[in-house]
Amino acid sequence: MEKYESYDAYLAALEKRGQLPEGFKTAVLPLSFFPEERKLINPLPMNMSLIMLDKPTTRFAGIFTSNRCPGSPVLIGRERLKSKQIRGILINNKIANVCMKTGVEDSISLLETLAESAGGKVEEYFPCSTGIIGWRLPIKAMKAVIPKLVSSLEGGTGVKLAKGIMTTDAFPKLRSIKVGKGRIVAVAKGAGMIEPNMATMLSYILTDISMGKSFLQKCLKRVADQTYNCISVDSDQSTSDSVILLSSGCKPAVEEDVFEAALLKLCTELAEDIVRNAEGSGHVIKVEVTGAQNDALAKAVGKAVINSPLVTTAIFGNDPNVGRLVSCVGDFMGINNLTFDKDQMSIWLGKELVFDKGSFCIDRRKEEKLSKYMKERSFDSDHKSYPEHNLTVDVLYKLSEKGKGHAVVKGTDLSYAYVKENADYRS
Amino acid sequence: MEKYESYDAYLAALEKRGQLPEGFKTAVLPLSFFPEERKLINPLPMNMSLIMLDKPTTRFAGIFTSNRCPGSPVLIGRERLKSKQIRGILINNKIANVCMKTGVEDSISLLETLAESAGGKVEEYFPCSTGIIGWRLPIKAMKAVIPKLVSSLEGGTGVKLAKGIMTTDAFPKLRSIKVGKGRIVAVAKGAGMIEPNMATMLSYILTDISMGKSFLQKCLKRVADQTYNCISVDSDQSTSDSVILLSSGCKPAVEEDVFEAALLKLCTELAEDIVRNAEGSGHVIKVEVTGAQNDALAKAVGKAVINSPLVTTAIFGNDPNVGRLVSCVGDFMGINNLTFDKDQMSIWLGKELVFDKGSFCIDRRKEEKLSKYMKERSFDSDHKSYPEHNLTVDVLYKLSEKGKGHAVVKGTDLSYAYVKENADYRS
Repeated sequence: MEKYESYDAYLAALEKRGQLPEGFKTAVLPLSFFPEERKLINPLPMNMSLIMLDKPTTRFAGIFTSNRCPGSPVLIGRERLKSKQIRGILINNKIANVCMKTGVEDSISLLETLAESAGGKVEEYFPCSTGIIGWRLPIKAMKAVIPKLVSSLEGGTGVKLAKGIMTTDAFPKLRSIKVGKGRIVAVAKGAGMIEPNMATMLSYILTDISMGKSFLQKCLKRVADQTYNCISVDSDQSTSDSVILLSSGCKPAVEEDVFEAALLKLCTELAEDIVRNAEGSGHVIKVEVTGAQNDALAKAVGKAVINSPLVTTAIFGNDPNVGRLVSCVGDFMGINNLTFDKDQMSIWLGKELVFDKGSFCIDRRKEEKLSKYMKERSFDSDHKSYPEHNLTVDVLYKLSEKGKGHAVVKGTDLSYAYVKENADYRS
Repeated sequence: MEKYESYDAYLAALEKRGQLPEGFKTAVLPLSFFPEERKLINPLPMNMSLIMLDKPTTRFAGIFTSNRCPGSPVLIGRERLKSKQIRGILINNKIANVCMKTGVEDSISLLETLAESAGGKVEEYFPCSTGIIGWRLPIKAMKAVIPKLVSSLEGGTGVKLAKGIMTTDAFPKLRSIKVGKGRIVAVAKGAGMIEPNMATMLSYILTDISMGKSFLQKCLKRVADQTYNCISVDSDQSTSDSVILLSSGCKPAVEEDVFEAALLKLCTELAEDIVRNAEGSGHVIKVEVTGAQNDALAKAVGKAVINSPLVTTAIFGNDPNVGRLVSCVGDFMGINNLTFDKDQMSIWLGKELVFDKGSFCIDRRKEEKLSKYMKERSFDSDHKSYPEHNLTVDVLYKLSEKGKGHAVVKGTDLSYAYVKENADYRS
């Protein structure tokens, strides 16, 4: 079991695993100018971060939020997927760029400045913004920083990038894996539970393995559906969620299934880091659903459980409130008008059978045992700067004997800290 | 504006409006035996409540939860809708009767005892249970109380019934309205935010107006869709939600539309009482959605807003976090793969335009004004025993110019108290 005794120990682990793949450089600079409003929000500075390829690449992929009120960078990013080649990604935290009259032109003008100092065309860069919604980016100040940002590009590890893109994240998130003669390194931000505005999930996946563009896009979609799209820290999907994958092509290709397996492992770990990040919460919850008619239904049921305030508050309180585990599934089936036979359903909490083919099977002894099980898996409810451990509260649903649908969904409990951070952060 | 200075003042208002319609009697008795487990839950006793008609009626209707793991009383209640005549309703709080091996036979055996002492057949009584899920009803003790319950039936007001069916409700809920030569009186329970197990909504609607059975069923369904089904205190729908309407037929019929209008007004008030009950929360939120393609979509959008933890925590914190008001709608449209043009959407918070045809229009002055607006509409966050006032935080969405779909959805914010009660109640 992974365990870190301190933030320094955690950072050391990231440095160890964080070496950038061949062909990439990054830079991070704090913004010298802060908008007045910033003071209302929180004391962290705005960072501008830059990911650059040594040479433009034709090997890239991206997936973006399905939110119908997407940020301007998302609108531009979708366009970029049609570009012939990509040179880099420009990222800022603190203020998102969502539904502003000048949103698209603002992002474009930043890329224009970037292209001037780093070379290439505007179409060869992805823009990304995350943070407060409803305010305009401090464009003038941001443009002023860009040349310095370009001149400070360097290799090394991705740790400063992982730190630079954080908003109210508890700790930086970076994972890496060896594949063939090269590697995949990925960073992510996404605070969720304690993000004061949006649980924006940004992830940048860098590799030197030279896989083809069309494969990368399909592969990234399949992997994201099993990882980033199987986590929920609150039911809201952000306006800016983006995952961008770049390959420098510096290392020989590997078998497609080998690359996909490696990417799946990497993103599974990173997705769990995103959930675990929300340690304002008390537990990480892993809901496995089997016996569904199909995988999509299994995932939807898992999300219904993870997003049930009654379930997640009970788990926060270490309360084996099995009634809620049953009711939220019945609720989901009913609301979606799906036929469902509860007498085929069994539920395990931890390894304990609590609902046996349509009927509860719990007693005081089992309740006490389960309460202890949950306590052992709880976090210090403070918003720690590193993950204490990687334990999860495991819930297993078997919806039927014959269904082949399967999914694993991860999320967090609903804690005081969630409400407090989300209610008080600006007041 | 309704305002009550104290619990006594509120009770006095209920007594004033609570006179039972002609042809009804009620009785409420605390249960002399308490199961051991009760001590784990809360100190309130179990009450058994009885609603009896002086004469059996053929005029009745009922609607029940769509939860696919319904309580045994719900299964029986659906059967009862086919009965020729109905004599009464037997209700208990504290322990629900959901997914227990002996659930149906337990409820039936209670009705057998009731039929023995009150006359008629088992098929002529509705059973209702609400409370903890996962435990068996203390049948023996309950059966022992029933004869005394029957012998203590009396007329007067429905206030003791409104009190008797409460679980962790903050205060009893009773509404009435005059129609033609008679009246409609309705009571409800439903704690939602602070219900430690399920936000079970039970409502009993009694009238002496002699409307026909088939009309009553259709009318109740239409009215419930606009009232009880347009509130959400947490996204979970209970396993036991039940609304039962009985007419004694003692007073002449009125025009169907006159009766339906009166029932709609009554249930609108009662539904808001249920939401307002959850004063562990800080605000009652009223979301009106116009310009949707149809009413169903308007309602679904309203519920997506009311059920968004990011929106409801922001409102709890009196934070005019308009980004969340936009994002949760975009999220809903995206997740359900609906085409949606954000540039047709405008949003008002209070009476302030905050999102104008696709773009935010908010500044510091407006934010401060809106924060003040929300503060003025907040409750003392303690779980008061009476509603302080009937103010709401009003959010208006205009999704498009041409859409005719309209809905009003009411709910509460997400407060510390919600998490605390739901997490700690049993520990």
